[in-house]
Amino acid sequence: MSALPKTLEKIIDSLSSLPGIGRKTAQRLGMYMMKMDDDFISEFASALVDMKDNIYSCSKCNNFCESDICNICSDPNRNMNMICVVENPSDIILFDNTGFNGSFHVLGGLLSPLDGISPEDLSIDSLISRLDGVEEVIIAIGTSVEAETTSLYLVNLLKSHNMKISRLSQGLPVGGQLEYIDQATLEKSFTERVAIN
Amino acid sequence: MSALPKTLEKIIDSLSSLPGIGRKTAQRLGMYMMKMDDDFISEFASALVDMKDNIYSCSKCNNFCESDICNICSDPNRNMNMICVVENPSDIILFDNTGFNGSFHVLGGLLSPLDGISPEDLSIDSLISRLDGVEEVIIAIGTSVEAETTSLYLVNLLKSHNMKISRLSQGLPVGGQLEYIDQATLEKSFTERVAIN
Repeated sequence: MSALPKTLEKIIDSLSSLPGIGRKTAQRLGMYMMKMDDDFISEFASALVDMKDNIYSCSKCNNFCESDICNICSDPNRNMNMICVVENPSDIILFDNTGFNGSFHVLGGLLSPLDGISPEDLSIDSLISRLDGVEEVIIAIGTSVEAETTSLYLVNLLKSHNMKISRLSQGLPVGGQLEYIDQATLEKSFTERVAIN
Repeated sequence: MSALPKTLEKIIDSLSSLPGIGRKTAQRLGMYMMKMDDDFISEFASALVDMKDNIYSCSKCNNFCESDICNICSDPNRNMNMICVVENPSDIILFDNTGFNGSFHVLGGLLSPLDGISPEDLSIDSLISRLDGVEEVIIAIGTSVEAETTSLYLVNLLKSHNMKISRLSQGLPVGGQLEYIDQATLEKSFTERVAIN
C-alpha cells in the first residue's frame, strides 16, 4: 500500500505527466501544495476547470482567447499591419516579450509531407485573407527541416503580394562562446554577417 | 494588455508560485496543459480541491491521510516496533522508498529557540506515548544545527526507555568523488569509518 493518501498520489501522478517534471519533483511539488493556503489551491483548481471550458481560438489569428477575438487582435495600440507568423500559440509570448508590437498569426503546426501535414491542415488560408494593407510578414518559426519547408511555401505564396517578408536571423546566441558553437551555426553566422560600419 | 487569456495567466501565476518553477517553465507547463485532454485536467483539478478537503493528519504519526489513521499505521504488514522519526510528512516517502518496513513519526518541525520553536510545538509527546514495546527509534532528520539540537533533545528524552536509538549515518555520498567532498563531510566519514574485515 502506498505511503500517501490516494488524492495526493493522484496529484503527484498528474504533475509528473507534465514535461520536464519527474516523479521526484512531482512529489516535492505535491507536498508543497499541501502546505499552501486553501484559497490559492481552490483558485488554481477552478482556473484549470475554466481553462478547458472558456478558452477558444481567436477567429482572426488562432491565439488562445476567452472571447471571439484575442487580447492582441483587439488591442487598438497594436500595429495590425505587421504580422508575425508562428507555429504555436505558446510562441506568441516569446515574441511578445521581445517588445514586438504588431499582430500574430498561429499556423497550428508546420508542413510535413512525411507526417501527412499539408497546407490545408495549417491556418494558411486565414493568413492570406488577412494580408490586405499589411506591410510586413515576419516568418518566426524554427530552423528544422519542416520549418524551412513551411517557410519556403509561405514565401512562394506571399511574394505576389506587395509587402516585405522577413524571417528570424540565424547566428551566434547572445553570450555564446565561439568554441561551443556548432559548425552549421558558425557557417550561418559567417554567411549572414552584418556590416557594422 | 497581456497576450494571454486571464485564465491561462492565472494558471501560469499559480504554477510559478511552486518551488523551482520560474515564469518561463510555468508558461511552458501552462501551454502544455492547454493541449492535454479534458478528463486529465478535470481529474487534476478535482484532486486539488479534494486535497484540501479530504486530507488530514494521522492521529498516530501525523502523516497525511484520508481517514483517522494513515496507510502506514493501518498496514498490518509493517513492523510497528520500529519508529523512524522525521521532520515532515514529505520525508516519509524518501525513507519508505529505501525499503524500510517499520512505522514513522512526523515531528512537524525542528527545535529552534531563535525562531521560538520549543518542544511543545513539535509532536514529541505523541511520540513518547507510542514507545510501549518499541525496539528501535531511528532519528532520521538532517544535519543542520536545528536538526542536531532536536536530535540531542530526543536522545536525552528517549535514553531512559529500554530500546535502541539510532541516527542516519554521515559520510561520502554514493558515487561521490573525494575531490568534490567538503572538508566537514570528509572528516565525518573518517571518524565514522566502518570496519570491513
